[in-house]
Amino acid sequence: MSDETSNEAEPKADLNEIRSLIMAFPGPDFAARDAARAREATLTKPPGALGRLEILAEWVAVWQARTPPRIERPRVAVFAGNHGVAAQGVSAYPAEVTAQMVANFQGGGAAVNQLCSVHDAELRVYEMALEHPTKDFTQGPAMTEEECATAMAYGMMAVDEGIDCLCLGEMGIGNSTAAAAVAHALFGGTATDWTGPGTGVTGDAMSRKIDVVDRAVTLHLPNTIDPFDALRRMGGFELAAITGAIIAARMGRVPVILDGYACTVAAAVLHQMDHHALDHCIVGHLSAEPAHADLCKKIGKEPVLNFGMRLGEGSGAALALSIVKSAVACHSGMASFAEAGVSDKEA
Amino acid sequence: MSDETSNEAEPKADLNEIRSLIMAFPGPDFAARDAARAREATLTKPPGALGRLEILAEWVAVWQARTPPRIERPRVAVFAGNHGVAAQGVSAYPAEVTAQMVANFQGGGAAVNQLCSVHDAELRVYEMALEHPTKDFTQGPAMTEEECATAMAYGMMAVDEGIDCLCLGEMGIGNSTAAAAVAHALFGGTATDWTGPGTGVTGDAMSRKIDVVDRAVTLHLPNTIDPFDALRRMGGFELAAITGAIIAARMGRVPVILDGYACTVAAAVLHQMDHHALDHCIVGHLSAEPAHADLCKKIGKEPVLNFGMRLGEGSGAALALSIVKSAVACHSGMASFAEAGVSDKEA
Repeated sequence: MSDETSNEAEPKADLNEIRSLIMAFPGPDFAARDAARAREATLTKPPGALGRLEILAEWVAVWQARTPPRIERPRVAVFAGNHGVAAQGVSAYPAEVTAQMVANFQGGGAAVNQLCSVHDAELRVYEMALEHPTKDFTQGPAMTEEECATAMAYGMMAVDEGIDCLCLGEMGIGNSTAAAAVAHALFGGTATDWTGPGTGVTGDAMSRKIDVVDRAVTLHLPNTIDPFDALRRMGGFELAAITGAIIAARMGRVPVILDGYACTVAAAVLHQMDHHALDHCIVGHLSAEPAHADLCKKIGKEPVLNFGMRLGEGSGAALALSIVKSAVACHSGMASFAEAGVSDKEA
Repeated sequence: MSDETSNEAEPKADLNEIRSLIMAFPGPDFAARDAARAREATLTKPPGALGRLEILAEWVAVWQARTPPRIERPRVAVFAGNHGVAAQGVSAYPAEVTAQMVANFQGGGAAVNQLCSVHDAELRVYEMALEHPTKDFTQGPAMTEEECATAMAYGMMAVDEGIDCLCLGEMGIGNSTAAAAVAHALFGGTATDWTGPGTGVTGDAMSRKIDVVDRAVTLHLPNTIDPFDALRRMGGFELAAITGAIIAARMGRVPVILDGYACTVAAAVLHQMDHHALDHCIVGHLSAEPAHADLCKKIGKEPVLNFGMRLGEGSGAALALSIVKSAVACHSGMASFAEAGVSDKEA
């Protein structure tokens, strides 16, 4: 969405073309799954003793379509966008914090910088026309069809050749309000069910936030054609970019680690189009944002970690990357009973 | 306990002297705690947004007695010992697997090798006279006082100058039976409460294991003077070494990450002597061994991770190290609002 890149993205900037990609999603690689299971059974440990690590390693093999799987070029992609709805006072921070935090990412001072450094992941920050926020979605659609498609196409560019695991995150003052509205539109219930404190709103600001979500869904839902339309009308550039990145990752056979609430909402748009569309994704952590737990249940995901985090910016995904890397390292690096000369279980 | 090292350890090999160390344990460093809290409040994120990571970073600062805390030389220490009680058929694997797995650690083929490699931790494997198992504790005490004290002193040597985080683990065919007996002696209940499948025993072998634990506690408990005595009578060399390592870490201000059931039982010996003796320790993960959850509650610890792992060899502790390193990196590396020029919360 930045001026430098929108030209490149234009050829893909059509929502119907993007819809058609989902129909063409590759499925799981059963040969890789079988090979991973066969290998796992030979490794020097009691069967099943690595618990969920074994499941994660198999998942990486299945979606990379190779055994043993490898994670050598993980990327954390953080998309940043601004929201017209921020003018309604729905955040604890002013809208200029989005750009200030992008500068902080670039300067290496944010949490996600430290996590990428510890876990040897490349950090890419995608600034999406911060000087041009989306329209206030209590007044009309946040994005035009073209804007939404362009943002999705921009997000797709995060999946470069050679990336073997993609962690997704966002930054955008006001985006937990946008996420709540999209979730409410996708899954029903009430505005209260899907709206939480975000960066930490309380009291009147929280009531305003719930009211904004309620009014937005009342305005847009009667005209919403499909989940992409909910994203376009109430989402934001960074949320659309995340949806696009997930699509590109599936096409490119790159396993995806989702972050918290806003990121998972962007993913859920795809789940509501095809319940298998997120099979190549895991949720990195359970956010402290109250609606995240329900959202994860709706899309059938059990978050990897649960530390009461609620920062966004890909921090929970980057932290979960360390677990996925560990799982892959054990599966791919351990010796077999035969190789190590260890006696197997007495049968 | 190996022939090469027992001479060095001899000056400390007295249980009463080791008991007296516990009385001399240093407490938390409140100045480091206050400095960590003050720093945390300035970092570029909403207050509390890193959840448990913030608590972990503060814990490291408190027990390293410095701010900002650092983890630059973490060590994973795995102690291996053999158990006379293994002859009773309480494990799914033959006793020679202990030595074979030590060779596997040395050859780089075990799970813990991969985890240490991914998370930049030094792995040290301490082989404890594998050719001389402890005595079968259904017949009499597993160790003499001198043997137990020597094993503890040997474990203390894992805390070398400069180590700034210590992950503890064990390997020993039969040691989940020993751990169950010690836990039963320390915390009451029934043998069934504290005995689980370990490496994967079922059916008759499981019944034998419970019976062994029951008989051991019936034999020894009337003569047990204190928790050290329970460790000596029903524990093992590697469990005593872990207890010793935890003591030395406290004296040396090194935060400790415990692994699963057997490791936590070795720690619980200290908790039953002084309920603050494990304040410098966290439990890295909740093991799939059923009694681990209750044991963690008894010692007031909430495991960091929960992945259904049950491998031992320090694997859960090494995995949790990645989380603790992440916590410390965020706390110590992030910019403040002032440094980054980010607007703080609208007050």
